[in-house]
Amino acid sequence: MSQTTPWRVTKASRDGLAPADDRLVTEAPLEMRLGGTPLAVLMRTPGDDADLLLGFAITEGIVLGPREVAEVKVVAEDPERNRWEIVLADGVRVDPERFRRNLYTTSSCGVCGKASIDALKVAAPEPPAGPVLSADLLLSLPAKMRDLQETFDVTGGQHAAAVFDAAGELLGVREDVGRHNAVDKVIGALAARRWPLGELVLLVSGRVSFEIVQKAAVAGIPVVGGVSAASSLAVELAAELGLTVIGFLRDESFNVYTGADRLGGTSAG
Amino acid sequence: MSQTTPWRVTKASRDGLAPADDRLVTEAPLEMRLGGTPLAVLMRTPGDDADLLLGFAITEGIVLGPREVAEVKVVAEDPERNRWEIVLADGVRVDPERFRRNLYTTSSCGVCGKASIDALKVAAPEPPAGPVLSADLLLSLPAKMRDLQETFDVTGGQHAAAVFDAAGELLGVREDVGRHNAVDKVIGALAARRWPLGELVLLVSGRVSFEIVQKAAVAGIPVVGGVSAASSLAVELAAELGLTVIGFLRDESFNVYTGADRLGGTSAG
Repeated sequence: MSQTTPWRVTKASRDGLAPADDRLVTEAPLEMRLGGTPLAVLMRTPGDDADLLLGFAITEGIVLGPREVAEVKVVAEDPERNRWEIVLADGVRVDPERFRRNLYTTSSCGVCGKASIDALKVAAPEPPAGPVLSADLLLSLPAKMRDLQETFDVTGGQHAAAVFDAAGELLGVREDVGRHNAVDKVIGALAARRWPLGELVLLVSGRVSFEIVQKAAVAGIPVVGGVSAASSLAVELAAELGLTVIGFLRDESFNVYTGADRLGGTSAG
Repeated sequence: MSQTTPWRVTKASRDGLAPADDRLVTEAPLEMRLGGTPLAVLMRTPGDDADLLLGFAITEGIVLGPREVAEVKVVAEDPERNRWEIVLADGVRVDPERFRRNLYTTSSCGVCGKASIDALKVAAPEPPAGPVLSADLLLSLPAKMRDLQETFDVTGGQHAAAVFDAAGELLGVREDVGRHNAVDKVIGALAARRWPLGELVLLVSGRVSFEIVQKAAVAGIPVVGGVSAASSLAVELAAELGLTVIGFLRDESFNVYTGADRLGGTSAG
C-alpha cells in the first residue's frame, strides 16, 4: 500500500472549477496483536510499519525496550499487510488485557478501511441533498472563522472548528487543544438547539482526517472543509456516504475531493 | 479551570535568552461517565464541557440525537469538575461496555492531570542529564527536518517527527498522517539500532501535547521541541520528569517552557 493515493479532484477558485490529478496522503488502519490478541488499531500512513509497532510498544510502556521484542511481523494470512503481530522475547510476559481497553483509538475502526466504512454506512444517517454552495461563499468562510479565533486564542495552540449554514452564516465556532474536541464542542452546542442539524458546512482549522468525516457523517453534516489536506480514507468514506470534502480551503482557492455536485452558482463552473 | 495557563518561559534567539511571561493552552483530562460507569477520558481544553460531551455522544454514535440525552452534568462530588455524567432520557438504553473499550484514548491517562503525571513518574526512566544545546544549534534543526520532509511529502497532509543527537546531527525522520505515529516510527527505527536512546532531541512538525511528551519520556528522550505551541499538561509533565520542552522552534527564535538548564553555549545567555 502506497504512502500517497492518486485522486481526481476539482480545483476551484474565483474563476471557476477545473478537474485535476492530485495525490492524497494515505490513511489506513493497522491492527496490532500481541500473542494473537488484538491490542490496538492505529490509523496510520502505510510504511515503516515494523518501526511504528516497535516504537508504539516502547512509548506506550507495553515493553521496556527493544530487547523485550523478538520480532514484529505481518500476520501470515493477511494479504493487505494490515494485521501485525508483536512477538515477545523469551521469558517476557505482558498481559494484553492490561493494555487493550486503553488503546483502541477509534470507535468504529475495523481492521481495513473497507470495514470501517461499512460500519459507518450503517451508523450514519442519509446526508441531506444540499446545500448548494458557490465558490465565492466557500472562499469567504476561513476569514469568518479566523476573525473569531483570534479573539479567543492567545496561545497559538488551539484547533478550531466552525459550522456555517447554506448562506455562509456562522452558527458556531469552538477551539480546543484537540481537533476532535473542537468538532464535538461545536456540534454539541448546535445539537442542543436544532436537530437534525440540516444542510450545514463543518470547517476545521487543520487537516480533514477519517475521524473528522466520521463525526460529521454521524451528526448528519453533509459538507466538511479543511484549511489543509484531506486523507485518503476521509475522502473514500465521504464518497461512499455522499458527503462533500473540501481541502486547502483558503482565501483564493480550494480543492473538492468528492461531492462536487454541491458546488453551484460558480460563473465559470 | 481556565482555557489558558500562565507560564514563565525563556525566550531564545541568536542574541541570547530572556525570561518572559507567556500563556499556554490548557490541556486537562475529562472523564465521561454513563450510568456511573467511566466510558472515556478525553484530553481537552476546559470550557464548553457540556457541549463537548453531548457532541461526543452524538458523533461517536453512543446516542442517536440530543433527545436521547436528558442531562449532562458534573459528577456531584468532583471539585475539579473533571468528571462528567451523561444522563440518558427515559427509556433510552445504552450498554456502556459496548463503547468503553473503544474510547479510552490515552493509555496512562487518569482523571486528573496529577494522576496522569504520577503514573508516568513510575513508568518513565530517569532522563539523561544532557544534552547541553546552544540556541544556534536548536535554531538549525527545523530546516534540517524540512529539507527531508519536502522530499517525502507531495500531499501537504503529513506530520513529521525527527530525532537529532547532541551535535545536531539528524538521526532519523519519519512522516505520517498521525502525529503520534510519526513519533513512534522514528523512535522505533532508532530503538532497533541503539538502546537506551541517550541524550537526544525529538522535534515534531506541530504542537507538543501531553501525549508527545509522554512518548518521549517513556522512550528516555530528554528534549522535546515543536514547531508550534506546547500545551499546559505537556509542560507540567516535562517539568515534573526533568525533561526540556521547546515550542515555536523556527529559524530565528524559540521558547523554552521548562528544563532551560539544557540551554548552554549561547553568547548572551
